[in-house]
Amino acid sequence: MATIGAEQIFKEFREHSAAEFFKKNRQMLGYSGAGRSLVTIVHEYTSNSLDAAEEAGILPDIDVCIKKLENGHYTVRVSDNGPGIPKNFVGKALATIFAGTKFHRYMQQRGQQGIGAAGCLLFSQVTTGKPIFIKSSTGKGKCYSCKLGINTALNRPIITEMKESDEDFRGLVIEGEFSEVRYEAGDHGVYEYIRRTALANPHAQIKLLEPEGKEWTFVRSVNKVPDKPPITKPHPAGLDVNDLIEFAHSSISRKISSFLTETFARTTSNKIDEIKAEDPTIDLDKPPKELQWEDAEKLVKVFRKIKWVAPDPASVVPIGADNVTAAIKNILDPEHMSVIGRKPKVFRGGVPFVVEAAVSYGGNSGKRVDEGYSGTILRYANRVPLLFDSGSCAITKAANDVDWKRYGLDLESQPISIFVNVSSVYIPYSGVGKEAVSQEDEIVEEIKLAIMEAARGIQRYVRGKEQISSSMSRYKAIARYVKQLSGDISSLTGKGQASIENNLDNIIKKHFPKLSDDEEEAAEEKPQQT
Amino acid sequence: MATIGAEQIFKEFREHSAAEFFKKNRQMLGYSGAGRSLVTIVHEYTSNSLDAAEEAGILPDIDVCIKKLENGHYTVRVSDNGPGIPKNFVGKALATIFAGTKFHRYMQQRGQQGIGAAGCLLFSQVTTGKPIFIKSSTGKGKCYSCKLGINTALNRPIITEMKESDEDFRGLVIEGEFSEVRYEAGDHGVYEYIRRTALANPHAQIKLLEPEGKEWTFVRSVNKVPDKPPITKPHPAGLDVNDLIEFAHSSISRKISSFLTETFARTTSNKIDEIKAEDPTIDLDKPPKELQWEDAEKLVKVFRKIKWVAPDPASVVPIGADNVTAAIKNILDPEHMSVIGRKPKVFRGGVPFVVEAAVSYGGNSGKRVDEGYSGTILRYANRVPLLFDSGSCAITKAANDVDWKRYGLDLESQPISIFVNVSSVYIPYSGVGKEAVSQEDEIVEEIKLAIMEAARGIQRYVRGKEQISSSMSRYKAIARYVKQLSGDISSLTGKGQASIENNLDNIIKKHFPKLSDDEEEAAEEKPQQT
Repeated sequence: MATIGAEQIFKEFREHSAAEFFKKNRQMLGYSGAGRSLVTIVHEYTSNSLDAAEEAGILPDIDVCIKKLENGHYTVRVSDNGPGIPKNFVGKALATIFAGTKFHRYMQQRGQQGIGAAGCLLFSQVTTGKPIFIKSSTGKGKCYSCKLGINTALNRPIITEMKESDEDFRGLVIEGEFSEVRYEAGDHGVYEYIRRTALANPHAQIKLLEPEGKEWTFVRSVNKVPDKPPITKPHPAGLDVNDLIEFAHSSISRKISSFLTETFARTTSNKIDEIKAEDPTIDLDKPPKELQWEDAEKLVKVFRKIKWVAPDPASVVPIGADNVTAAIKNILDPEHMSVIGRKPKVFRGGVPFVVEAAVSYGGNSGKRVDEGYSGTILRYANRVPLLFDSGSCAITKAANDVDWKRYGLDLESQPISIFVNVSSVYIPYSGVGKEAVSQEDEIVEEIKLAIMEAARGIQRYVRGKEQISSSMSRYKAIARYVKQLSGDISSLTGKGQASIENNLDNIIKKHFPKLSDDEEEAAEEKPQQT
Repeated sequence: MATIGAEQIFKEFREHSAAEFFKKNRQMLGYSGAGRSLVTIVHEYTSNSLDAAEEAGILPDIDVCIKKLENGHYTVRVSDNGPGIPKNFVGKALATIFAGTKFHRYMQQRGQQGIGAAGCLLFSQVTTGKPIFIKSSTGKGKCYSCKLGINTALNRPIITEMKESDEDFRGLVIEGEFSEVRYEAGDHGVYEYIRRTALANPHAQIKLLEPEGKEWTFVRSVNKVPDKPPITKPHPAGLDVNDLIEFAHSSISRKISSFLTETFARTTSNKIDEIKAEDPTIDLDKPPKELQWEDAEKLVKVFRKIKWVAPDPASVVPIGADNVTAAIKNILDPEHMSVIGRKPKVFRGGVPFVVEAAVSYGGNSGKRVDEGYSGTILRYANRVPLLFDSGSCAITKAANDVDWKRYGLDLESQPISIFVNVSSVYIPYSGVGKEAVSQEDEIVEEIKLAIMEAARGIQRYVRGKEQISSSMSRYKAIARYVKQLSGDISSLTGKGQASIENNLDNIIKKHFPKLSDDEEEAAEEKPQQT
C-alpha cells in the first residue's frame, strides 16, 4: 500500500463550533432515548426558571405544559414569574452555547455551564426544524416576543419575528416543538422529575399539564425565598497555579500583596506576613501583572501549607432541615423520617460543599415492586433532581457503601426513600449532561456519613416494624422443611416420623422466641458513633 | 427581601470559549484523579499516532516515555513514525479545541472530536504553566520544532520558538510536562492501557519506558497495515431531517434528485423512482438549495419506509478474527480461546457498526485475586481500550446480561478474559471523555450475541477443565457435614452413628458419578442457535 502524505490528509482540516459539536454528540447533553430527551428539556427550562427567581428574590410559580401533536411531535411550554430576560440578551442567553451569567461566577446555582437552553434549541432545530418561541418581560412596558434559531456553524442566535407589546407581564415563557421525544411514566419520566424538583424546592409552586390532559399542582409548602447565594471570593487553599496567574494578570492592584487580600477570601494582612515568613523569596511588592509561573507556584505551595480559616459556609445555601422535613411530609407523607443537615466541608482543597440527607419510611416512600417494596435513592445537586447515570454518581456510590444491615434496613424489600442533596458553588459533574456528581473521595465520604447519620435516626422505628413480619416469614420457611426432613430421617433410621417431627419443631421454636424479647434486645443496643 | 431586576443580573453576562469550558470542567475530558489523568494523556497521544499512521498507510512504531521529575511533575513524550503534521497546521491541530480532520468526515477513526490533544495541552498549561514541545516533519527537508500553548479565552494556539532543521526524520514527537498526575500500576494504569492497545493493534509496535526505568516492548505480531477505512457516503436510512437540509443547502447539484444520488449511499436512479412513487407530492426537480423542512421531512419519512440495500460494510474496518487471534496468543497466551467476528449491523437507522468478541481461558487471561482468579472484560471502541466508566458502557451491560452459567463459565472465579471491539464510523460515546459506548439498544444486543457466540465456542473446554475440581470441592463441602449430621441424627433417634454415616455417604456418592459420564452429557447438549 502506498503511503499518503500529511499534506493530503490535512486538506481535510476544519474547525468546528461548539454548536456543531453538541449537535453531532447530542447524547452527551442528555438527548439519548425519547423519554430521557423530554426530561432533559423540562429539566433545562425549569432549572433556569428556578435559578432566575432565586437570584431575583422571587417566590417562583412555574407552569410546565406538554402537548402531543397529531404528527407525533411534542410541544413543551414553560412559563415563569421570574425576572425575565432583557431583550438585548435573549439571543445570547437562549441560543448560544457557552454563554450566560453563571459560568464564571463563584456563586451557587443550578446551572453553571451556559449550555442548557441552547442545547434544547439545538435539539428542537435538529428534530423539527422549528425555532423556539419566547415571550419575556423584565417589568412593565418591556414585554416582547420573538422566535429563536441557532446558526450552528457560527454558534450564533437567529432572531426573527421580534414584536414588542405593552402587556403587563413579568417573567419568561418559552415554547418549543420537538420530535424524537416521548412522554413516559415511571422513575425516569417528566412527572417524577417535577415531583422530585418540588421535593427539593418547597418554596416553588409547580404545575404540570400532561399530554393526556391530567393536571398536577405541587403546592408551595414554604413561603420564604431561599437565601440568595452570595457571590464569594475564591479561597486560597483551592487555587491552582493557573487560576492564580489569571487572576493576577487581570488585576488592577498595585502590588501582589494587595491583590491577594482584595481577591481572595480569608486573606488578611496577617496572612500576607505569614506568607512572607514562610517563603521570603517571593516578591510580593511587584505588580500582579508581572507574576510569573515560578513565583505563582511558590505562592500556591505556601497557600497549601499554612493554616487558613475554612471557606465561608455562607457561600453554600442548603435547603435546610426544616424545609426538607416540610417537603418530605408534603410529598412522601412517610410514617417516620430522619433528616440530617451536615456542616460545610471542602473538596479539592478549597471548594466548600454541604450535604443534606434524609431517610424516610412508609407512606409514599420507596417504590411498589410486585407485592412488596424496594428502596429508592433521590439524588440532588443544588436542588436539581438527578434521574439518570446513577451508576457513575457519588451519591449512588455512597449509598451502596453504607452497611444497611447495621441499621436493620433493607433497600431491597422496604418502603424506604433516601434523599441526598449536595450544594456547592461548583458541583463537579461527571459529564456535560450533568446527571451525576463525579466520585471525588471527599464528597463520597461526606455523603456516606450523612446517610449513615440519617439511617441511625430511623433504625429503632423500622426495626420494631419489621421484626414481627421478618421472624414470622423466617419461621415459616424453616417449618416448611420439617415435614420432609422428618420423613427422610425416619426412613433412614427406621424411627417413627411423628416423634422426629416433634423434636425438630422444638429445636426451631427455641430459635424464635417471642418478639417482645427481641425488642428488649434492640433497645439495649447502643447507637454507633462515626 | 427586595427583588433584583433582570438588568442588574445580566450585567454579569459573558461568553466563553470551548477552551475555557473544558479548562474549568476538565473531569469531563478524563482529567479526574492523578492516575486516570496520566492514562488520558497517553491515550490521546497514542491514538492520534495510530490514526495518523493508519490513514497514511504506515506500520506504526510508537515510543511512550514517562519520567518523574524531582519536583513531582511528570513528563510524557510520545514519538511516532507517522506522516507528521504540516508546519502551518500544527497550532490548530494540537492547540485548538474542536479542530481537526476527523470530526466532519464519514470515516472510521479512533479520534472523532478534535478535542484530545488540545485537552492535554490545556491540562499541562493549567497544572505546570508550561507549553508542550513539538518536533515534526512530513518528509525530508521539512523538519521543524516549536513550543505550543493555548490562549484559553480565544481558543487559539500560541506558537513560540519555531525552528526549522534539515534533520532526516518523518513523524511526530510530542512532549509535555504535567503535574497532578501519577504513574500507577494495576487495571487502570498506563502499562495496562498500552498492553490493551497492543492487543487490539497487532500491526503496531509500541515501546513503553516507565518512570522507574523499566522498558517494555509490545512486539508487532501482524505485518500488514490495516485496510484504510474509506470515506463513505451517508446512508439515507440514518439521516434526520436537519442533516438532509444541511447537505442539500451546501450542494451544487442542479436538482434534488441528482443531489440525492450523488450525495448518499445506495441511492440509485431506481430508488429515485421508488421515492416518487411513494410520495408524488415531493418536488424532486427543484434545486437542492430550495429544499424546505416540509419536503425534507416527507423525504426522510419515505427514506425510512422503503427497503434499502444495507450500508456498505467496507466503511467499517474491524480488527479481523485472524489478527485478534494472533494478538491474544501473543499477549494473553491462553490455554484456549474462541474468537468471533460478526457481520455489520446498523444503529439509529443507518450507522453501520461491527462487533468482534473473544473469550479466552487460562494463561494470562483474567486476573489473579487472592488465591484464585476473576474474569476481566477488555472493552474497545475502534481498537482503543476503554479503561474507565465501565458502569455506563454498552459492552459492560451486554457482558452482564449474558447468562454465563449456561456456558459453564463463571466470571467470579475463572481465569477468563472477554474481549469486545466495536468498530464504526461514528461511535456514540456517552461522554466527551470517550470512555464508554452509549447503551443504544441495537448495540447492546449485538454485543451480547457476539459474546454469547464466543462463550459457546469455549464452553466444552472449560467445562471439562472445571468439572473435576468443582465436583471434588462440592463433594468435599458436603462430606464435611456428614460426620456432624450423622452424630446429631444418632442422638435424636438412638440409632448407631456408623450405619447412619454409611447410609449418608452412599446417598452423596450417588450424586457425584465419575466425570466421564458428565462429559458424555455435555457432548449431547446441542449448541444453541441465536
